[in-house]
Amino acid sequence: MTEVEAKKPQESLQDRLAQVVELLQRHKVVEDLTQRQEGQHSDLVENLVHRQNLAELQRKLEDLHSADVAYILEALPLEDRLAVWQLVKAERDGDILLEVSDSVRETLIADMDDHEILAAAKDLDADELADLAAELPRDVVHELMETLDAQQRERVRSALSYEEDQVGALMDFEMVTIREDVTLEVVLRYLRRLKELPGHTDKLFVVDYDGVLKGVLPIKRLLVNDPERLVVDVMATDPVSFHPDEEALEAAQAFERYDLISTPVVDKNGKLIGRLTIDEMVDLIREESEAEVLNMAGLREEEDIFASVWRSLRNRWAWLAINLITAFLASRVIGLFEGSIEKLVALAALMPIVAGIGGNSGNQTITMIVRAMALDQLSTGNTSRLIRKELAVSLINGVIWGGVIGIVAWVLYDSWSLGLVMTAAMTLNLLLAALMGVLIPMTLVRMGRDPAMGASVMITAVTDSGGFFIFLGLATLFLM
Amino acid sequence: MTEVEAKKPQESLQDRLAQVVELLQRHKVVEDLTQRQEGQHSDLVENLVHRQNLAELQRKLEDLHSADVAYILEALPLEDRLAVWQLVKAERDGDILLEVSDSVRETLIADMDDHEILAAAKDLDADELADLAAELPRDVVHELMETLDAQQRERVRSALSYEEDQVGALMDFEMVTIREDVTLEVVLRYLRRLKELPGHTDKLFVVDYDGVLKGVLPIKRLLVNDPERLVVDVMATDPVSFHPDEEALEAAQAFERYDLISTPVVDKNGKLIGRLTIDEMVDLIREESEAEVLNMAGLREEEDIFASVWRSLRNRWAWLAINLITAFLASRVIGLFEGSIEKLVALAALMPIVAGIGGNSGNQTITMIVRAMALDQLSTGNTSRLIRKELAVSLINGVIWGGVIGIVAWVLYDSWSLGLVMTAAMTLNLLLAALMGVLIPMTLVRMGRDPAMGASVMITAVTDSGGFFIFLGLATLFLM
Repeated sequence: MTEVEAKKPQESLQDRLAQVVELLQRHKVVEDLTQRQEGQHSDLVENLVHRQNLAELQRKLEDLHSADVAYILEALPLEDRLAVWQLVKAERDGDILLEVSDSVRETLIADMDDHEILAAAKDLDADELADLAAELPRDVVHELMETLDAQQRERVRSALSYEEDQVGALMDFEMVTIREDVTLEVVLRYLRRLKELPGHTDKLFVVDYDGVLKGVLPIKRLLVNDPERLVVDVMATDPVSFHPDEEALEAAQAFERYDLISTPVVDKNGKLIGRLTIDEMVDLIREESEAEVLNMAGLREEEDIFASVWRSLRNRWAWLAINLITAFLASRVIGLFEGSIEKLVALAALMPIVAGIGGNSGNQTITMIVRAMALDQLSTGNTSRLIRKELAVSLINGVIWGGVIGIVAWVLYDSWSLGLVMTAAMTLNLLLAALMGVLIPMTLVRMGRDPAMGASVMITAVTDSGGFFIFLGLATLFLM
Repeated sequence: MTEVEAKKPQESLQDRLAQVVELLQRHKVVEDLTQRQEGQHSDLVENLVHRQNLAELQRKLEDLHSADVAYILEALPLEDRLAVWQLVKAERDGDILLEVSDSVRETLIADMDDHEILAAAKDLDADELADLAAELPRDVVHELMETLDAQQRERVRSALSYEEDQVGALMDFEMVTIREDVTLEVVLRYLRRLKELPGHTDKLFVVDYDGVLKGVLPIKRLLVNDPERLVVDVMATDPVSFHPDEEALEAAQAFERYDLISTPVVDKNGKLIGRLTIDEMVDLIREESEAEVLNMAGLREEEDIFASVWRSLRNRWAWLAINLITAFLASRVIGLFEGSIEKLVALAALMPIVAGIGGNSGNQTITMIVRAMALDQLSTGNTSRLIRKELAVSLINGVIWGGVIGIVAWVLYDSWSLGLVMTAAMTLNLLLAALMGVLIPMTLVRMGRDPAMGASVMITAVTDSGGFFIFLGLATLFLM
C-alpha cells in the first residue's frame, strides 16, 4: 500500500456521512420512481438524474481517505453499505478492506466475486494479505499465492503461521536495512536511490551479512551527525526488539511506555525478519480496551451495530443463558424461605435492595481490579492488602448506607428489629461483594482466563443469591 | 526532556517489580532488627547491610527507564512507593512525575518539599510544566515561572489557558521550522547544526516570515529527493492540522485514522503555534477507553488501587447513593403488590428472575450503543432502525428464554397460568430493556452528557422497577 499524506479534512466526518446518506436517499427515490413508471417515456430522463446522483456520490467518495470511506461503510446499514461499496473504485478496495472492522469486512467480501477480490488484493503487501486471508474464500487465497514471488509467498505463510495475538501476525516487512561499516553519506545516497521510504520509518535497521540485527540508526541521528561518520559509531545498539512469538499486547505496552514509532522483530538467532509500527499498536490498544468493555457486559465480540438480528442473538445468548441459570438459583434461594416471606411479606419488598446495592458495589470493585490487571499493576503479592482495603470500604459503606436504609425500613414497617436485620444484611452482602470482586478476577487469571470475561454477570450472581440468603436467613433467625 | 533511546528490557516488568519488592522487604527486615537491637554492638553491622540493600535497590532503579520506574511506583502501596521515590535521583524526578497517573503523582508531590519540586521541574519543557502545574503548590509554580524566559513563560501560560480536553493543553512547542524558498541541501545542513532533533519529528514545518504555516516537509521526502530541489516543490501543502481549541479526542481519532506521527497546531490566522505528537494521542486513547469502562460502572475517576479507604469511598459513593434510591423505588413497587405476594408467595421467588435477565440484557444493549457512540458511528438518523433491531432481538430472547423459564415455573409451582405470566413478563421486560438501552445513552448525549456515565446503574434501575411492576402487575391481573 503506497502512502498518501493525509489532507486536512474540510468538514467533519459526521458531515460527510450525512452527505453520503442524503445522496443515497435521493438515489433511492429516483429508483423508486423509475420502477413505478417502467415502460413510460420519462424513463430516459429518470435514468439520467439517477446517474448524475451516483456520479456525484462517486466523486465524494474519491475525495475521501480510505479510512474515511471505511468509517462511512461502518456507519451505514447493510443495504446502503453495499450500494456505496459498489461505487468505490476497484483499486481502492484492498486499502478499505484493511480499514474496516472484521464484522463489516465479512459483509463486504460476501458481496464481491472472486475476480473482484483478486483485483482488490493484488496491490497489497504480504502482511496485509495475511490480515485478509482468513476471511477470503479458500480458492481465492490459493490463486493469490500463485501470483506472488517466492519471498512474498514465504512472508505471507510466515505471518499466517502466528496466532492473532502474537507479534508475528502484526509485523510488516517494509524494513530499510543498512550495513554498519558505511558512512552516513553513503546511507543518505542509498535512501535517495530508493525514491520512497515505507511509512513510519523513524529508524533504519543495521544488519550484518547474515541478516543479524546489529543495531538501529534513528533517522534523527542520521540527520544531525556529520555525514563522514560511520554508521557503527552513530547507531544505537541493543534497541527494543521483539520475537515473532511474543504477545502483541506486551509489545503494544512497550510502544506506549517508551514512545516508540517502529521496532525490529528478530528470530531467536537475532536475524531481522520484520518490524512493528505504532499504527498497528494503536489499533491493538484500542481493540483491547474495547474487548474489556464488551467482555465485562457479557458480549462475545464487537458487534456491528447493524448486524442482523440473528448475529446479535448469537453474540449475546451465551451470557444471557448463564445469567438465566444464576437468576434461577437466586430464585431457589428465595424459595427456601417462602415460609418466612408468607409470614412477613415486607421481606419480599426489601430483599431486592440488599441484592441490588451488593451488585452495584461489587461491580465497582471488579471493574477496578480488572483495570489494574489489564495494566499489569496487580501481582499476587499484594492481593491480601487489596482485599483488606476493599473490605474496609465495604464495611463503612455497609454501616452508613445500610444504616440509612435500616432506619427507612424501621419507619416504613414500624419494626426496629426488621431495620436492624436490614442493616446487618446490607453490610454482610457488601463485604461479600468486595471479597468476590477481588477473588473472581484473580481466580480467572490464575485459571488462565480473561479476567474481564463476564465479570459483571458473575459478581451479580454472587451478590444476588448471597444477598437473598443473608437477608432472608437473618430474618428467619431473628424475626420469626 | 531529552530523549534517550529505550533499550531492550532484559526481564519483564513484572520480574523487575518483584525484585524491587524483594529488596524493599529485605530492607524492612533489617530495619526492624535494627530497631529491636537498638544500642547494641551489632548496630554497625546491621547498618552496613541496610545500606548495601538500599544501594542495590538504587542501582536497579538507575538502570530503569523513567516509564518503568513510574510503573513500579504505581504498583506499590503508599509506604513502599515513597521509600522507592526517595531513592530516585533528583534529576529524574521531573520525567517520572510526568509518567505516573494523576492519583499517584499527588502522593509523590505531597512527599516533596518546595526545594525538591523546583529542582525536579527545572529541566522540563513548557508543555510539561503546564501538565504538572495544576498539582504543584501555588507558590512553587510562581517561583518556577520567574525562572523562565519570556517565550517559555508565555508558552506555559498559553498551555494552561486551555481545558484539559482541548488540543492546546496537549500540544508541545518543539517544532523544527524551515522556509519554503531554500533547497533540501540547506535544510539538511541546518538540521546538522541543531545537534539534536525533538522526539517524534517525522516532518518539518514550513512557515513564512510571519510564522504562518505554508506546508510540511515529511522527513521521508527530505531523504529521498534530490538535495538541489526547493522545499516548496517537495513539501506537502494542506496537511492535517488542528486549532488549539479543538477537542483533543477528535485529534486523537484523526491520528488513529490517518496513521499520523505529528501534526502542526495553528491559530485562527494560520500561524504555527505548536504541534501534537502520537505519544500524547496514544495516552489519550487509552485514558478515554478507561474512562468509559469506569463510568459505566459508576466510578468517577481512575482509582489508584492502593488509594486510601477514604478516597475510594469518595470516588464510589455518588453512584452507590443513586443506586440506593433506585433500589428503594423498586422496593416500593414491590410494596404496592404485597397483597398479591401474601396470597401467592411464589411471586416473591420468581420476580428477581424477571428483573435480573432484563438488567443483563439491557446492559448488553447499552454497552454496545455507548461503544458505537464513542466511535462516532451513531447519528440520530439511524436511531429508529437501531431500536427496531434491538426490539427484535429482545422479542426473540423473551419468547425463547421466557418460554423456558415459564415452563420451569409451571412445573415447579404446578400452575400453567403462573408460567404464562412469567413468560409474558420476561418478554415485556426485555423489550423495555432494549428500548431504554438505546434511549438512555441517546438522551444523555442530547443533553450534552457523557453517555457512559452510570449507564449501567440507570439501565438496571429501569429493568428492576419495570420488571417488578410488569410481573407483579400481570400476576395481580390474571392470577388473583
